[in-house]
Amino acid sequence: MNDEAFMREALKEAKKAFAKDEVPIGAVLVLDGKIIARGHNQVELLQDATAHAEMLCLTAGAGALSNWRLADTTLYCTLEPCCMCAGAILNSRVKRLVWGAPDLRVGVNGSWIDLFKNVHPIHNLEITPRILEAESAELMRTFFQKQREKKECLNT
Amino acid sequence: MNDEAFMREALKEAKKAFAKDEVPIGAVLVLDGKIIARGHNQVELLQDATAHAEMLCLTAGAGALSNWRLADTTLYCTLEPCCMCAGAILNSRVKRLVWGAPDLRVGVNGSWIDLFKNVHPIHNLEITPRILEAESAELMRTFFQKQREKKECLNT
Repeated sequence: MNDEAFMREALKEAKKAFAKDEVPIGAVLVLDGKIIARGHNQVELLQDATAHAEMLCLTAGAGALSNWRLADTTLYCTLEPCCMCAGAILNSRVKRLVWGAPDLRVGVNGSWIDLFKNVHPIHNLEITPRILEAESAELMRTFFQKQREKKECLNT
Repeated sequence: MNDEAFMREALKEAKKAFAKDEVPIGAVLVLDGKIIARGHNQVELLQDATAHAEMLCLTAGAGALSNWRLADTTLYCTLEPCCMCAGAILNSRVKRLVWGAPDLRVGVNGSWIDLFKNVHPIHNLEITPRILEAESAELMRTFFQKQREKKECLNT
């Protein structure tokens, strides 16, 4: 499987979040060409600001490997990571990060700030941005459009 | 209770981590002058790179309030936060952050980078650094000294 195929799996996770009325973001963790963990955003369901797709996926991946060091893994996520998720990716020693659409508000790979321009003293990673960008961005747009319509419906 | 008194409670948490052979970092979350959640580093025990003291404390705090938005709370942590924890603190809408000793390698409030110099588009917070700095730093030094002695003992 190539990057697009794995990102389609991350998009499947994002759609699970969408179906639960969560901001539709998904992630999969890959080792040796196989998906070893999946995650989708569950902040509202779990009432936990740390329950981003990437975080849940990293925790599940560490569980699968019985090791918090996720050496040689690639994380695919549908959105440019926020500061928390980028930090967790660094802390987990993920080898490579592939993301889909930019998060123009709080993304830290060029949108809000470019965290990765700073050489990290412990770990640095390869990054491939904007894989299946249009699909991820469209899913986000559809979600927020529906949220607005719901609000308008409640206000009339 | 003042900042020093709450930091002493965070230090108690750090000592729990120390007793479990974890890097001794602790945190408490305070609302209206009361501690509503506690956490200590458990990365090795849980084999989860996201299980920093601050993260576990924020998740516990959200559980206590049944709300991921930790409005009007103050987080006390014994060490300058890493990128992941700083991001989680922002995501959680913590009002104020008080930390103890600088983390000269990966701290993001001036040590590795100064994340908070960038105005965040959603949330910004008050920060009070270096409360009971000497106590927190000494606990870390003692821990790493013991770790080195263990390694030397194994190597002889």
